[in-house]
Amino acid sequence: MDARIKPAPDAIVPAAVSPLAPASFPEMPPVAGVRVATAAAGIRYAGRTDVLLALFDPGTTVAGVLTRSKCPSAPVDWCRARLKRGAARALVVNSGNANAFTGKSGRGATELTAALAATAASCKPNEVLLASTGVIGEPLEAAKFAGVIDELVGAASPGRWHEAANAITTTDTFPKGAAAFVRLGASVVTICGIAKGAGMIAPDMGTLLSFIFTDAPIAPAVLQNLLRRGVEDTFNAVTIDGDTSTSDTLLAFATGAAAARGVTAIAKISDPRLAALRKGFDAVLANLAEQVARDGEGARKLVEIIVEGATSKKAARRIAMSIANSPLVKTAIAGEDANWGRVVMAVGKAGERADRDRLSIWFNGIRVAHKGARDPGYDEAAVTAAMKKPEITLKVALGLGKGRDRVLTCDLTKEYIAINGDYRS
Amino acid sequence: MDARIKPAPDAIVPAAVSPLAPASFPEMPPVAGVRVATAAAGIRYAGRTDVLLALFDPGTTVAGVLTRSKCPSAPVDWCRARLKRGAARALVVNSGNANAFTGKSGRGATELTAALAATAASCKPNEVLLASTGVIGEPLEAAKFAGVIDELVGAASPGRWHEAANAITTTDTFPKGAAAFVRLGASVVTICGIAKGAGMIAPDMGTLLSFIFTDAPIAPAVLQNLLRRGVEDTFNAVTIDGDTSTSDTLLAFATGAAAARGVTAIAKISDPRLAALRKGFDAVLANLAEQVARDGEGARKLVEIIVEGATSKKAARRIAMSIANSPLVKTAIAGEDANWGRVVMAVGKAGERADRDRLSIWFNGIRVAHKGARDPGYDEAAVTAAMKKPEITLKVALGLGKGRDRVLTCDLTKEYIAINGDYRS
Repeated sequence: MDARIKPAPDAIVPAAVSPLAPASFPEMPPVAGVRVATAAAGIRYAGRTDVLLALFDPGTTVAGVLTRSKCPSAPVDWCRARLKRGAARALVVNSGNANAFTGKSGRGATELTAALAATAASCKPNEVLLASTGVIGEPLEAAKFAGVIDELVGAASPGRWHEAANAITTTDTFPKGAAAFVRLGASVVTICGIAKGAGMIAPDMGTLLSFIFTDAPIAPAVLQNLLRRGVEDTFNAVTIDGDTSTSDTLLAFATGAAAARGVTAIAKISDPRLAALRKGFDAVLANLAEQVARDGEGARKLVEIIVEGATSKKAARRIAMSIANSPLVKTAIAGEDANWGRVVMAVGKAGERADRDRLSIWFNGIRVAHKGARDPGYDEAAVTAAMKKPEITLKVALGLGKGRDRVLTCDLTKEYIAINGDYRS
Repeated sequence: MDARIKPAPDAIVPAAVSPLAPASFPEMPPVAGVRVATAAAGIRYAGRTDVLLALFDPGTTVAGVLTRSKCPSAPVDWCRARLKRGAARALVVNSGNANAFTGKSGRGATELTAALAATAASCKPNEVLLASTGVIGEPLEAAKFAGVIDELVGAASPGRWHEAANAITTTDTFPKGAAAFVRLGASVVTICGIAKGAGMIAPDMGTLLSFIFTDAPIAPAVLQNLLRRGVEDTFNAVTIDGDTSTSDTLLAFATGAAAARGVTAIAKISDPRLAALRKGFDAVLANLAEQVARDGEGARKLVEIIVEGATSKKAARRIAMSIANSPLVKTAIAGEDANWGRVVMAVGKAGERADRDRLSIWFNGIRVAHKGARDPGYDEAAVTAAMKKPEITLKVALGLGKGRDRVLTCDLTKEYIAINGDYRS
């Protein structure tokens, strides 16, 4: 498939690394009970790693949040069935092929991959979680994993997060990782996470995957609660292009290794330690989600949308997403124009209650519109300077209630079109 | 505001006229009871007409369909109130300023414009309909209409549709008109329509406006029925960028002049002549709606999306719109790639029932995917040739039920970004 992606002669060449990328990959310690390894299986890419194997000690629990797409990939179907059990011993992730819309052969590929990993790792296929990202509709040749997975099991070792984050990338311009430490009684537990995605979605080659690892002993139902609640204001509050993937997968693995250091099992949602743990989880999820927005295809601006004064948080989310997915708002921000008219349009089309005559709009703290009309006092030069910044906060106050929400997105540039349209089949 | 729209040095220059434009403006006869005139009021544009006045004989009925935006423009609010009465003597349309998000001054501008037109045309302000399109958030200086409207009333004459269609354009690259003739008993009535829009919406300068004129004698409630039902599969089935405008306005005026030729009043929905009339109305609406899609900002391909086998027509519409608004599908079509994977993604995210293993997808009649996987028999060379055509029909069969729908859109190109992002404030 690589041959299909030839830049046209007049192609806009996307940046090698997003200008919004963090300066470097973060320091991330090993998580006791987790070993990882990567390899080049030649699924699609040449000269780079494209398979990640993570091995977990016995007793590791797993929880997950999967795409709500009605046409999910085969590995998503696989994970959905395995998550009911809540136990994990291995995770296999490949990039280059999403194993989506592949029918029976796709299901066969997941079964073969899990069987290979189970044999190599001495566990049951039901304890193997799978994720794939890359092109849709091409059969995944899982037989290519045969020798590779054996080697990976032999090579697996703790703490190789940077390498792991690299192996799962597709159109990403930088690997994404984040870590947090949480004090639970006398001990400290570690939470490490990696993610990929350069669209929340970009189905040919940019689906969102994220994996979180902790040594805390957490029961599956509690882990699911941490994930389900944590994702709402982090990954679910990011949009690059509004195109929800067939393969979005977020999995969290808790090895329980910290039990050896005196951390007792966290088996109930009512456990008082959950608040601290949730804070740590949310910090890792939020950090990774922001990195995904920073690597939005063609992005030159990170855009935070804050909606206040809506009738509910849900209404605020819907309005914020309407703004964040509006091509006209996104192109205006790419053009460094504080075009509040387009923001009004996006508020109006969201379908939630809005009163034009109470609406106020700010760009990077400067109020440009107030109570249904242009703010007579705003300083054009100050707004122009503010819009040149790489990070734009767009705030809308509706003046109706106490509903507030925040989402992250990026601008819409010609580079996005180049990445997604400048090729011939 | 013109000064704000300076192309950047590296700007992609949009086409002077859409390559998808009709060869010429159609032949359109006068409609008895309607006179029109245009003028240059200098609202925003220099060297072109920007005001349209249409005058209607006494007894003219009016119906309308207006934007569902929660932040409608002042003229939309004005029309909504006037349509309750169903009587019209004049229509004033200006381009260059949408009179949207203009607060009290916006309401004042509509009142002043209607008063000026009523005085000049010797009717009541309540019988004047208004529409504005152009920049949002700038006060509309309605005082500029003062002398202009008097002149327009003097100059108004029958059948100047091409001129009228030109005066209401903004970023449109060609004026849009369509006509139909309907036999009612022994007489023939005429239906003429004009429209503008180069996005179904593009709030800074490309809102959708359309005006239909007929000499048939139609009661307001019947006219409203014709419009409400007609718009569903025509204008409401077109999307350029998913951004619904603050100002979308479709008005139909029926002068009743054909009564003099023996056409008796059509006062009830049960009138047997309604079927023929509906056919004529629908033809004009569909023709204008397609012209809007053909003038989509930056469009190089006209894209028809057909969804079959859905659980209902409503489900088919939602899936078709999900495909039509997907930036990844639209950029793939711009790239002349029959990327069915992105179509699967868009079907999956629509939220309606879909079964991956029953899904089939065609591009210009060539089946590329069948029953949940790539069609093994498809001819790559034939697909490549088909995708080079300026008109693409993308058909999706879900295999679930009898729900079918069709929407029109266009591709997403760098020119769209250039039109909407290549300027600095």
